[in-house]
Amino acid sequence: MTAREDGRRDDELRPITITRNWLDHAAGSVLVEFGRTKVLCAASASEGVPRWRKGSGLGWVTAEYAMLPASTNTRSDRESVKGRIGGRTHEISRLIGRSLRAVVDYEALGENTIQLDCDVLQADGGTRTAAITGAYVALADAVSHLRSTGALTGEPLTGSVAAVSVGIIDGVPRLDLPYVEDVRAETDMNVVMTGAGSFVEVQGTAEGAAFDREELNALLDLAAGGCADLTALQNEALAR
Amino acid sequence: MTAREDGRRDDELRPITITRNWLDHAAGSVLVEFGRTKVLCAASASEGVPRWRKGSGLGWVTAEYAMLPASTNTRSDRESVKGRIGGRTHEISRLIGRSLRAVVDYEALGENTIQLDCDVLQADGGTRTAAITGAYVALADAVSHLRSTGALTGEPLTGSVAAVSVGIIDGVPRLDLPYVEDVRAETDMNVVMTGAGSFVEVQGTAEGAAFDREELNALLDLAAGGCADLTALQNEALAR
Amino acid sequence: MTAREDGRRDDELRPITITRNWLDHAAGSVLVEFGRTKVLCAASASEGVPRWRKGSGLGWVTAEYAMLPASTNTRSDRESVKGRIGGRTHEISRLIGRSLRAVVDYEALGENTIQLDCDVLQADGGTRTAAITGAYVALADAVSHLRSTGALTGEPLTGSVAAVSVGIIDGVPRLDLPYVEDVRAETDMNVVMTGAGSFVEVQGTAEGAAFDREELNALLDLAAGGCADLTALQNEALAR
Amino acid sequence: MTAREDGRRDDELRPITITRNWLDHAAGSVLVEFGRTKVLCAASASEGVPRWRKGSGLGWVTAEYAMLPASTNTRSDRESVKGRIGGRTHEISRLIGRSLRAVVDYEALGENTIQLDCDVLQADGGTRTAAITGAYVALADAVSHLRSTGALTGEPLTGSVAAVSVGIIDGVPRLDLPYVEDVRAETDMNVVMTGAGSFVEVQGTAEGAAFDREELNALLDLAAGGCADLTALQNEALAR
Amino acid sequence: MTAREDGRRDDELRPITITRNWLDHAAGSVLVEFGRTKVLCAASASEGVPRWRKGSGLGWVTAEYAMLPASTNTRSDRESVKGRIGGRTHEISRLIGRSLRAVVDYEALGENTIQLDCDVLQADGGTRTAAITGAYVALADAVSHLRSTGALTGEPLTGSVAAVSVGIIDGVPRLDLPYVEDVRAETDMNVVMTGAGSFVEVQGTAEGAAFDREELNALLDLAAGGCADLTALQNEALAR
Amino acid sequence: MTAREDGRRDDELRPITITRNWLDHAAGSVLVEFGRTKVLCAASASEGVPRWRKGSGLGWVTAEYAMLPASTNTRSDRESVKGRIGGRTHEISRLIGRSLRAVVDYEALGENTIQLDCDVLQADGGTRTAAITGAYVALADAVSHLRSTGALTGEPLTGSVAAVSVGIIDGVPRLDLPYVEDVRAETDMNVVMTGAGSFVEVQGTAEGAAFDREELNALLDLAAGGCADLTALQNEALAR
Repeated sequence: MTAREDGRRDDELRPITITRNWLDHAAGSVLVEFGRTKVLCAASASEGVPRWRKGSGLGWVTAEYAMLPASTNTRSDRESVKGRIGGRTHEISRLIGRSLRAVVDYEALGENTIQLDCDVLQADGGTRTAAITGAYVALADAVSHLRSTGALTGEPLTGSVAAVSVGIIDGVPRLDLPYVEDVRAETDMNVVMTGAGSFVEVQGTAEGAAFDREELNALLDLAAGGCADLTALQNEALAR
Repeated sequence: MTAREDGRRDDELRPITITRNWLDHAAGSVLVEFGRTKVLCAASASEGVPRWRKGSGLGWVTAEYAMLPASTNTRSDRESVKGRIGGRTHEISRLIGRSLRAVVDYEALGENTIQLDCDVLQADGGTRTAAITGAYVALADAVSHLRSTGALTGEPLTGSVAAVSVGIIDGVPRLDLPYVEDVRAETDMNVVMTGAGSFVEVQGTAEGAAFDREELNALLDLAAGGCADLTALQNEALAR
Repeated sequence: MTAREDGRRDDELRPITITRNWLDHAAGSVLVEFGRTKVLCAASASEGVPRWRKGSGLGWVTAEYAMLPASTNTRSDRESVKGRIGGRTHEISRLIGRSLRAVVDYEALGENTIQLDCDVLQADGGTRTAAITGAYVALADAVSHLRSTGALTGEPLTGSVAAVSVGIIDGVPRLDLPYVEDVRAETDMNVVMTGAGSFVEVQGTAEGAAFDREELNALLDLAAGGCADLTALQNEALAR
Repeated sequence: MTAREDGRRDDELRPITITRNWLDHAAGSVLVEFGRTKVLCAASASEGVPRWRKGSGLGWVTAEYAMLPASTNTRSDRESVKGRIGGRTHEISRLIGRSLRAVVDYEALGENTIQLDCDVLQADGGTRTAAITGAYVALADAVSHLRSTGALTGEPLTGSVAAVSVGIIDGVPRLDLPYVEDVRAETDMNVVMTGAGSFVEVQGTAEGAAFDREELNALLDLAAGGCADLTALQNEALAR
Repeated sequence: MTAREDGRRDDELRPITITRNWLDHAAGSVLVEFGRTKVLCAASASEGVPRWRKGSGLGWVTAEYAMLPASTNTRSDRESVKGRIGGRTHEISRLIGRSLRAVVDYEALGENTIQLDCDVLQADGGTRTAAITGAYVALADAVSHLRSTGALTGEPLTGSVAAVSVGIIDGVPRLDLPYVEDVRAETDMNVVMTGAGSFVEVQGTAEGAAFDREELNALLDLAAGGCADLTALQNEALAR
Repeated sequence: MTAREDGRRDDELRPITITRNWLDHAAGSVLVEFGRTKVLCAASASEGVPRWRKGSGLGWVTAEYAMLPASTNTRSDRESVKGRIGGRTHEISRLIGRSLRAVVDYEALGENTIQLDCDVLQADGGTRTAAITGAYVALADAVSHLRSTGALTGEPLTGSVAAVSVGIIDGVPRLDLPYVEDVRAETDMNVVMTGAGSFVEVQGTAEGAAFDREELNALLDLAAGGCADLTALQNEALAR
């Protein structure tokens, strides 16, 4: 069995840093790093909700994901220049939004909107899971900000949410894949879990051969451990 | 426990029909019906591959999914008129393509391209799983067509692929959700499996509360049974 | 003189079938077939009219035409993927809308909107004339539907409308051209007529040499006969 | 019977002016005026043809039509700002192109391309027919220009082409409708004819009531006379 | 020192013509010519202002610039066909709008909007400066038009505005560059000034070598003289 | 006279930091800060040039500017989501590109392309001038990188370039405006200068009243001082 290139154990996360208030003016802003992957997660809070939700008494949370053109090893074209958003970007934006909404009580949020922007500054695998993990912290800060301005009084967060990638490389299940492992993975899975240990999203894809139930179980076990570690790091960051 | 509105058992598929050669001129064309959901799956085969793959000796398989505007209860706007493809459409097109490519041997396909078009004529839940199930049959017909024209000699299909939706409604796991169940599901999962019983894609989403490992397992069991039934129906259709 | 490839007389329509209620939920839905040309015509009825017409007491009828990518012998790219609608598609959508509006009394329709979607499932010449002929039947069903729901009481249809293509092939005027004749036609004309025998649209185009008045007259005679036959078939379908 | 507002006979054209070489540098450029309707028709000639025609030995002629935003009484938005071309613009561009190509011998043109741009500076009805009439003259000048540079030697023009609108207003057939008549017309027809008196395009539309064969004949008679007059004016302009 | 190709002195404008009321129906319409550069400037006045300005009591002035495809020596593609407006077009539209707004008193204009359309019919350098110079005259006519209809009573114009290009060619500062000089200029500057001699915009660009303060001063001197001459011509045109 | 809110002298820059190698993999990457304005400037170097320049032996340098949605106090919509790039973005991208190209010797660069991406992470006035100042340093690093890989041997940089904003606030000329000063400025000017003290771009705009020659001179003096200071800081950063 070959060891991982960066010397980690198979069930070990990369070094994780969560820097709050990275920007001066957003309601919540977090620079999250999973190894060399850096994502800037900014939460903008505004009173009011989209038109189709007006008068419902319910709030709204939404998210957009994007990569800076120079975030990857080979520069990629800007989607604004191409004039259309690619399928992958759409897919990840929707995933982040759904993941955060899983821990939001819209009634307690009231008719307020929180928009999360997750911009990848440097990409080295796991950008969507880093984005979800960082966006939750930015969301929590935005909620505190709204509470401090009197825009809400209750607790709209019913729990926390974190995410991690897992995959099978050379037959071995591994946690938190950097780019070099990601491209070689036979199976690739992104798992989003609540702080309480339930599943919010499970997205597994056979990149090479199809996978069996046993492999699926091993990946879910790894992911559960990784998400628990990330939850602890989120709580630590929010406590600072 | 409330029975299902259409009287099915929880582990029972809707009536499935797979009509081959629905169009006169496509290499393969299938009208697949999962209850009232009707999807027209057409495979177009052409010699040659996209530019980035030329000279590799390898083939290519890709897919596009779309819904006719009147396929849903409330008419939806055409994406061609809006000038952009929505995130959901992108996501499903990519899912269908990945699912089919999981059972394709590009080397045996040679430098040929097969394009699958899955157009939903009537939508009543499970359109993406019906599309994958029907598209596999259209793909198999397109492969036969290419073989009959001498464009290929080997067997590019390494297996079959089928898909089904499962979900938890009022705490009960159920197979193959029609629209009325889909909108009420607490958890919604789409599972793509090979005829040999391995997983190609697992996409589970908590729509309401997060789900635990036990619920996940129950859903996977249901899906495995449903995919096995669909595989049998595909084989039967191809044998006609 | 060479006979037609499909053995028809020069003034004979292809086999025509008009299948009503092809979809379960549209107000009116018709699968119309002119030989191998298959067009799905769905009418969606909704209360209210576009903003610019509000408060006028008048209704609105509009239409959109599109071709499925695999409907033609050689697959054509999706307009949603290209991000723009082509000139031909625009032109035909406008033609269908104008043709139907010629037999609508907006006052009797009241502030209701009927949207016709004509999607070509298989194309073998004459798709626009099949679409108009089928869309009229779907429109009639949608009007009945609105009447049954009490949304209107009077009769918004002032007559019926049908359409057929005619052309000159090897100097001979012919009715209802399939693709193989259409591409060889020196002159190509689409004629839309009311059930009462008046003209709604006459669109003649010299594809090769310009045509003289005598040829124009011969084509109009043929078209008048074809439209009368189609009117009879529409009435028959609506009587079932 | 009410006289026409501008005092013309029913079969009389508006004052027509055809000013050649209105621009300094186009191969052919014509300002054509049908009363207050002013269209600038510019022909750009270039060696070579579009890729799909290369090596065929055949030339190509194409056209684009557009209206300046302030050309109409009420300013209309720019299509470049809206980011898409409307159906009417597409339709007219295609009509102009087809009309000109009806009198072009591609073989004699050789692998040269002539692009016609017809930009409406002021619109008062009949912009498409003025555009075709003026574009023919610009095309003839571009052909002379190509001959003078030695890019071609034969005669690629097999005839001339002109166009006029006709319509029925208050039951009376009239020639060359200005805007005030156009909006009131029960039937509206655009007719494109060769200088030899054959038809290239006939596009008749019932705006109000459907029209009968007799009315159609009366309109065709009027149009034939108008096109003959325009042909004479084109020849005169080209002789200057 | 080489003389200018067209025989002008270095501080001399090209022949300038300002033709008012070039169109029949715009509130103000001017054909402005700077030598062979021809720009049609049309002002459309409408009551009311954009939504974001409603109820403010203030008016609005905006501008759009575009080039006809055949206005340049080598035909350029239409931006409506490309589906997007280029950076240069955007830049010039914004410049024209800002320049005109510099002499508008929004309060005196009241809640009226004036839209300027500057369409280049023929381009031979200096199209943006010709557009500003002509647009001011069209704006003045539109203001008179609004006053004559009673839509405003005060004087919304606080002054006049004109613009000219200057540049350094072979080391020599020159006024009002035609295309042949513009492409050879080492430094290129566009200057917009009020009739009272103050600056509204100064946009200087080093095309080849960077320029020093002395050169900058020489260019500003030339421009001031040119703008004064243009102001006199504008006043003369408005007095006719 | 009121002092500046941040206590600076009128001719004093905000605190400037230039952090090189902020990303791991770009050829050159700089985080530049002008007070609270933060711009990430990444240079991507690639062999080869755009098609229209192939075989010329000359290189190419280009730039794109964009703002993250949460970079401003009030979140702005993504241009990728809107599907089109705004005029301001286009304008600034073009300005940055021109400014850098002013100090590039294309022949010495050889057929290599350097693409600069300037993404504003936080905006507090002066984003375009910070972008130019930082992009020059990233460009210098990318040139060193190309030299280290042997892709070039000579010196393609003929000098350095830096930029600063100046403006008149309450009648007083000031250097390097933060947002609160920028919105109040009567005149706003961006000046780009070489390290040798010559002008590359001068863009002055009267936001309120037009400005006279004396004010223009005072602004140019301030800008020259600021650019000299920035040049020293660039040299210092590159020496580290």
